[in-house]
Amino acid sequence: MAEKKMVEAITSMEEDFSKWYTDVVKKAELVDYSSVKGCMVIRPYGYAIWENIQHDLDDRFKKTGHENVYMPLFIPESLLQREKDHVAGFAPEVAWVTQGGDEKLTERLCVRPTSEVLFCEHYAKVINSYRDLPKLYNQWCSVVRWEKTTRPFLRSSEFLWQEGHTMHETAEEAQEETMRMLHVYADFYKETLAIPAVIGQKTEKEKFAGALATYTIEPMMHNGVALQGGTSHYFGDGFAKSFGITFTGRDNTLQSPFQTSWGVSTRMIGAIIMVHGDDNGLVLPPKVAPIQLAIVPIAQHKPGVLEKAAQLKERLSGKFRVKLDDSDNSAGWKFSEYEMKGVPLRLEIGPKDIEKNQCVLVRRDNREKIFVSLDQLEESVEQALQAVHDGIYQKALENLQNKTHVAHTHEEFLDIAKNQPGFIKAMWCGDSACEDKLKEETNGVKSRCIPFEEEHLGDTCVCCGKPAKHMVYWGKQY
Amino acid sequence: MAEKKMVEAITSMEEDFSKWYTDVVKKAELVDYSSVKGCMVIRPYGYAIWENIQHDLDDRFKKTGHENVYMPLFIPESLLQREKDHVAGFAPEVAWVTQGGDEKLTERLCVRPTSEVLFCEHYAKVINSYRDLPKLYNQWCSVVRWEKTTRPFLRSSEFLWQEGHTMHETAEEAQEETMRMLHVYADFYKETLAIPAVIGQKTEKEKFAGALATYTIEPMMHNGVALQGGTSHYFGDGFAKSFGITFTGRDNTLQSPFQTSWGVSTRMIGAIIMVHGDDNGLVLPPKVAPIQLAIVPIAQHKPGVLEKAAQLKERLSGKFRVKLDDSDNSAGWKFSEYEMKGVPLRLEIGPKDIEKNQCVLVRRDNREKIFVSLDQLEESVEQALQAVHDGIYQKALENLQNKTHVAHTHEEFLDIAKNQPGFIKAMWCGDSACEDKLKEETNGVKSRCIPFEEEHLGDTCVCCGKPAKHMVYWGKQY
Repeated sequence: MAEKKMVEAITSMEEDFSKWYTDVVKKAELVDYSSVKGCMVIRPYGYAIWENIQHDLDDRFKKTGHENVYMPLFIPESLLQREKDHVAGFAPEVAWVTQGGDEKLTERLCVRPTSEVLFCEHYAKVINSYRDLPKLYNQWCSVVRWEKTTRPFLRSSEFLWQEGHTMHETAEEAQEETMRMLHVYADFYKETLAIPAVIGQKTEKEKFAGALATYTIEPMMHNGVALQGGTSHYFGDGFAKSFGITFTGRDNTLQSPFQTSWGVSTRMIGAIIMVHGDDNGLVLPPKVAPIQLAIVPIAQHKPGVLEKAAQLKERLSGKFRVKLDDSDNSAGWKFSEYEMKGVPLRLEIGPKDIEKNQCVLVRRDNREKIFVSLDQLEESVEQALQAVHDGIYQKALENLQNKTHVAHTHEEFLDIAKNQPGFIKAMWCGDSACEDKLKEETNGVKSRCIPFEEEHLGDTCVCCGKPAKHMVYWGKQY
Repeated sequence: MAEKKMVEAITSMEEDFSKWYTDVVKKAELVDYSSVKGCMVIRPYGYAIWENIQHDLDDRFKKTGHENVYMPLFIPESLLQREKDHVAGFAPEVAWVTQGGDEKLTERLCVRPTSEVLFCEHYAKVINSYRDLPKLYNQWCSVVRWEKTTRPFLRSSEFLWQEGHTMHETAEEAQEETMRMLHVYADFYKETLAIPAVIGQKTEKEKFAGALATYTIEPMMHNGVALQGGTSHYFGDGFAKSFGITFTGRDNTLQSPFQTSWGVSTRMIGAIIMVHGDDNGLVLPPKVAPIQLAIVPIAQHKPGVLEKAAQLKERLSGKFRVKLDDSDNSAGWKFSEYEMKGVPLRLEIGPKDIEKNQCVLVRRDNREKIFVSLDQLEESVEQALQAVHDGIYQKALENLQNKTHVAHTHEEFLDIAKNQPGFIKAMWCGDSACEDKLKEETNGVKSRCIPFEEEHLGDTCVCCGKPAKHMVYWGKQY
């Protein structure tokens, strides 16, 4: 049975990466466009990935002591204005509700772009004593940021996310929480999404509106463009003071608590597509794949084949997410279909296999065929899924490494920015003027982060030549 | 150890049911108010109930073949207007977004009050052949309906819900789906929430805007007021025609599919409170209780007590949702606290119990004490939780039965409406003018539903005396 492509072809990555991306999200039936500008319909296959992401992350949040809550969708304009850096950052990109039913509202309400101010308003009421701390809350919801150019999952006017908002007795505890959640994200990227990333701190210029420090996960897409994969912010007690949140401390004095927030969104699905996908479509990490194993019967009209395939489905369904495709489509069509949908493993079973008490597992990532005895089927599937996970992680890591370049001089920086898509590691003086200059000169290369593991690449800033303070990862971003 | 009340008392139900309700939602820490009019903050304990409800219902939806999706939060005004009955029903109560960032929108967007039109717009694109049917989609999200008077969980400008929207090849299949999902709700109410209800069909006057038929679950609150607990709608092909949804049928002709929608919301938490609660606070059905068992150590300063309590927590945690309260608060305070929070079972363990290798289980619903051997602890807890479920269901059923009255005449109807809160069963001619008249005469008694099991209570309408068509359940509602 030839593995030739029988479903309508998609644009190749090399030809047009952007069109390849759009083809994949449409043909794999992840999203559909709607008549609402910049908003997407997340279809069953796309939403099932999000549900698997949610379950995994939610477990991690609960194991680290967090509780889920739900805050209102709307923020009154006066509430948004209570913290001035925050409102300056978000006001230009929010949607405003001005009318409720037949009446014009006396105060405009914005649709939440993020919920710091709502959490603060609530915390002001429920935090009174050090005994009420820490408060470790998280919320799963949708948020709205009015975007001019949009792209499914990567940038849309509405998206789904989780936002954690916590309050702590001391600055140290809040800083620890900020780091803890950054590492929860980094572990999740590695263990669940099979995506390696650079982690580090955002520069002053790139940090979250109102935060004292922002930490970030920066994975590298297949085409050398970076993506902000998740952020964790430390706020100090700035918001707490603006919102009058106080507690009686252990020493009986009135104090302000220290705050964090952290979030990841449906944008992660965009990262999965662009990190693991190939010219045959999606490649899904086994842990979030809605279908982990697609059973394709071979010569299914022959006696006993469909019965055996159904038995295998029954047998594997308790342990894995399995689909049996016993439709009339040809086996070749089915191969292409489940490749397009990124199903990590295909199981082929035909008359000869049945005779030999075996079946064939085919890996999506490298098309390796594994002949396995039906006696050890569960173990073999388990191992093959792990092999796919490890394989795509390794491939993504090599891509990240291959697309990370070092610039020692200004000229080198500009040359790499122009000719070699990817991260550029280079020294920086700490001045945001140099960030602005480099961005302008390179048509959009920005500082991604100051990595936790800095290297010494020289003594001077790659832009201005003044003494360097940090090594920074730079790159274009989605 | 006296079980006297040590936490701040709540208003009694008899004294002021409405204040009792507000006290319970606040003191059990289910919700908090926010500065956004009519919107509530759902606190961790309240949200955990919602999560348990979601898991249970989502399983039921998936077992009946449904898939989750996510549609946009916004609906353009022109899209909402495509089905005229529907827009007439919802337009007066929606919130309008008129500004995005700095720009005034050329077309207003309403924040979804329900998503029929968005599903229809999408279905028009993805349904082409009978092979694409049925489409069985569900969405978990928040919706907004601009309410003038609000009450936590019962009526709020924003609430959380699920909305199922399905498309079928034939009218029969769609009608079957409408009934299937109504019964999924009814089973869920009985088996999970321990709430009995009357089920039946809404009258023309009370049906959903744009539906051909609406079916409903009507539980009875403790105070004799009814609540619309969940609805399932059959639409025929009306929306499909308005939205140009067609498919090529088995006979190769172009046809319109038949549609349903069905939903339940956080209002169910209001029903739980008002059906099961008592003067000591919440009483939670064991299947959705965030804490199923609270362990209260007795004489916890005595050697070995806290260790034993911690062992029991460890032992039970794999199977039940358990909290051990080893705080310094008195045992009496803890008893009241977990009663207020509606925890179905309390486990007391003290030095004498340890000596006898036993502990005491105390049921929240009737305070029955059960002395159980630690050797059979898991079985005993399991049985006691089931006993609480059965006990509160039985009590709720008796309340529903005791608060259901029969009116044979107009005078009888008005007398019951005035003096005996609850359902009134009475014959009706089928004319909505009689519904209007009875509502006006009784200060708000409306038809709840035409039950599936009608009784013959006479030959004439209780209002106008003309020939009766149906027996109807009537009542005031939240």
